[in-house]
Amino acid sequence: MINRSALPIVLTMGDPAGIGSEIISLSLEKESLRQRCIVVGDLERLRTGARKAGSPVKYRRIKSPAEAAKYDGKIPVVDLKVVPKNLAFGVLSDEGGEAAFASLITAIDLAMAGEAAAIVTAPLNKESLHLAGHLYPGHTEILAERTGAPDYVMMLAAGNMRVLHVTTHIRMSQVPESITTERILRVLELGQKALRDMGVDEPKFGVAGLNPHAGEGGIFGDEEELIIAPAIDEAKIMGIEAIGPVPPDIVFLRMNRGHYDAVIAMYHDQGHIPLKLLAFESGVNVTLGLPIIRTSVDHGTAFDIAGKGLADPGSMVEAINLAISLSRQ
Amino acid sequence: MINRSALPIVLTMGDPAGIGSEIISLSLEKESLRQRCIVVGDLERLRTGARKAGSPVKYRRIKSPAEAAKYDGKIPVVDLKVVPKNLAFGVLSDEGGEAAFASLITAIDLAMAGEAAAIVTAPLNKESLHLAGHLYPGHTEILAERTGAPDYVMMLAAGNMRVLHVTTHIRMSQVPESITTERILRVLELGQKALRDMGVDEPKFGVAGLNPHAGEGGIFGDEEELIIAPAIDEAKIMGIEAIGPVPPDIVFLRMNRGHYDAVIAMYHDQGHIPLKLLAFESGVNVTLGLPIIRTSVDHGTAFDIAGKGLADPGSMVEAINLAISLSRQ
Repeated sequence: MINRSALPIVLTMGDPAGIGSEIISLSLEKESLRQRCIVVGDLERLRTGARKAGSPVKYRRIKSPAEAAKYDGKIPVVDLKVVPKNLAFGVLSDEGGEAAFASLITAIDLAMAGEAAAIVTAPLNKESLHLAGHLYPGHTEILAERTGAPDYVMMLAAGNMRVLHVTTHIRMSQVPESITTERILRVLELGQKALRDMGVDEPKFGVAGLNPHAGEGGIFGDEEELIIAPAIDEAKIMGIEAIGPVPPDIVFLRMNRGHYDAVIAMYHDQGHIPLKLLAFESGVNVTLGLPIIRTSVDHGTAFDIAGKGLADPGSMVEAINLAISLSRQ
Repeated sequence: MINRSALPIVLTMGDPAGIGSEIISLSLEKESLRQRCIVVGDLERLRTGARKAGSPVKYRRIKSPAEAAKYDGKIPVVDLKVVPKNLAFGVLSDEGGEAAFASLITAIDLAMAGEAAAIVTAPLNKESLHLAGHLYPGHTEILAERTGAPDYVMMLAAGNMRVLHVTTHIRMSQVPESITTERILRVLELGQKALRDMGVDEPKFGVAGLNPHAGEGGIFGDEEELIIAPAIDEAKIMGIEAIGPVPPDIVFLRMNRGHYDAVIAMYHDQGHIPLKLLAFESGVNVTLGLPIIRTSVDHGTAFDIAGKGLADPGSMVEAINLAISLSRQ
């Protein structure tokens, strides 16, 4: 068993044309975070990002995470040298997509090899990723494939609010047929484990319905009765405190008022609309069910402001903090 | 042409077992509102509601709205005498459903006859309504049927945020097939008219996508490209400022930051989740497309707190204010 708390947290730089190098620099101004983190990416681009963001942090090159053990105040970088020096900020390119992909793959391999405690990912640009020939919908699918995870759950977290998604990147017309009792149970199981790792000993889950008013007793749909309620019943038998199905337009209000520690959302926007609204700058994305710990910012590359010193590191700071906290378990 | 601003606003009492009589009493403590309103319901129940809520308002019986012209500080009530004296608060009953139905029908008929400027509805309980043999999903369907409206739109409003719904009380699996270019255009047309009536001269609409990330360029669905975008194009030709399709988890944030005056939501919870989260106590429901003006509280009968003096009149106050403002046009 590896003692993860002794290992570094690895940050990926994300797409070099995005705000990754800026938010990493700003986040790691905090010494408590700087002591725990290394970055996988491009040394020159990170230095440029720090300059653009007006951040005083310094970077140094390392060959392997083990070299990070000697803390000297500078941020250790596994330098992949993948970014052309003149690559512009805010522009799509296959080089940007390739750099983001390479930094993610290296980070995953370090974590799988037991050389890193957790991965925190900066945003990549899906179109640049595809230009580089890597046809994945996003980070999570790459992580799942490379770590061989059979199933996983996207969780968004912001303060005391968390949402776990039963389905994510599929079209709405496929949502009803994709929701199964087994999947909801699995999400609850992974959720209970994750929340305990986050320090919530007896987590309470509000389980959203799929339909308006949670089906209104069958008038607007029967997925609540046929699929969701049986999962809740079974979860209770397994010792998971699951409540619902709750009307979707009520369940987040109740969590916001402290009735639940997390909500189980049936589809992407059911969970993303409320969490992004309540915590746009400080939300964190966590992938549950992987053999490694992975957190992420919950925003994109922000090409419109990249390289302009305008990026807000709030979500990155929270993502690093959560990764540190999860890797203590 | 009737000069509506001279006519009273009619409040329905809603289900007598709910919080209607309490929130009406509390709302009409404000003299500027009391001067404009009459209530259709049960005089004794309204007096009980005022007492339960600790409100000093007084009620008086009238036979027709014309009698309300003489303002004496008391709230005029068209007394339907439909509530048994010992009817408990917080309990389902056919009497409660029948009373709510009768008060709504009378209010509609007064507005259709040109004797009232607008209707503001207190909540009814769907189960009690059904126990009384009136098998409607809710207020709106009764209003549409009795006024002969061919189509209508549910709008939620809270401060500077408004959401108009393309679909409402249908199961999620029927949402994708129910969204048409014609319907979206009609919602935009009714929305432009309503917002102008509310004093927004050049309303800007953010049109939500249906799918996650608004389909991400077709990867998670094509309704954006095939159905929603053509409606936006046509709306622009008609002089309606419509923007989108916008990713559903971004569009409400942007409205909240002032980019749009209203959002067009594709389904019930897409609009209800964010609006209820941002403004649970002060949201107002407006039905557009009827031949009469109708606003409503956006909460239910709250049987758990009915008759206990705990109800918050915030949404009712906003609903009355909006009805007054709309009836000035």
